Amino acid sequence: MDPSALPTAGNCFIAACKAREVLNHVSNRWGGLVLGALLERNLRYSEIRDRVGGISEKMLAQTLDVLERDGLIARTSYPVVPPRVEYALTESGRALAERFIDLFMWIGTNVETFASAQQRYDSQRDSA
Amino acid sequence: MDPSALPTAGNCFIAACKAREVLNHVSNRWGGLVLGALLERNLRYSEIRDRVGGISEKMLAQTLDVLERDGLIARTSYPVVPPRVEYALTESGRALAERFIDLFMWIGTNVETFASAQQRYDSQRDSA
Repeated sequence: MDPSALPTAGNCFIAACKAREVLNHVSNRWGGLVLGALLERNLRYSEIRDRVGGISEKMLAQTLDVLERDGLIARTSYPVVPPRVEYALTESGRALAERFIDLFMWIGTNVETFASAQQRYDSQRDSA
Repeated sequence: MDPSALPTAGNCFIAACKAREVLNHVSNRWGGLVLGALLERNLRYSEIRDRVGGISEKMLAQTLDVLERDGLIARTSYPVVPPRVEYALTESGRALAERFIDLFMWIGTNVETFASAQQRYDSQRDSA
């Protein structure tokens, strides 16, 4: 896929584009991970927090708000005692989550390649 | 693809994993865009800057260093006057760039869906 084939109406390379805004929401380190976690099944707040290692309460709450506003996840409150809130992927959220999981899989399976490249870079820098 | 199928050796969901480190490098708002820009052809510094709307000189220089260290791009200096430096995707950089362009395409073609979702969310909040 050639980047020049990107649509002009929604082009992530253009700073002021709505597409860039959504890209920033999902590539702010946490957005993609939260979407990916929900691909398995609908989850409660605490379940998402447990699955996404290292996310703070503040960042999780903020990320969930932004993803809900973008229409990527849906929040459902069940009128039970104690109250139960569940998060689920929407149709577009699911399509995006699948792309992120593919990305995570690829990064995960190539992790040794990155480690070797970093060692090579650092040793060349040290010997320069 | 089920997130629970992710390899344990390189799992982006684990905060301390090398996979998360690389994910942070490429999802720090600029990493994916710089990789995507290079998918078309090898580019000079100023050409990347022109293609990735809104990137500052500082962020571009920093992003190029991190991507080179991860072995995702290669930097070549040509001994000409004036000096010429070109950046190219490595094999792993190309594989990753293709995933990002797919992501950008998808976000770009769904930009109206996001805009409608945001309007709906905001009007519900206003009327609450």
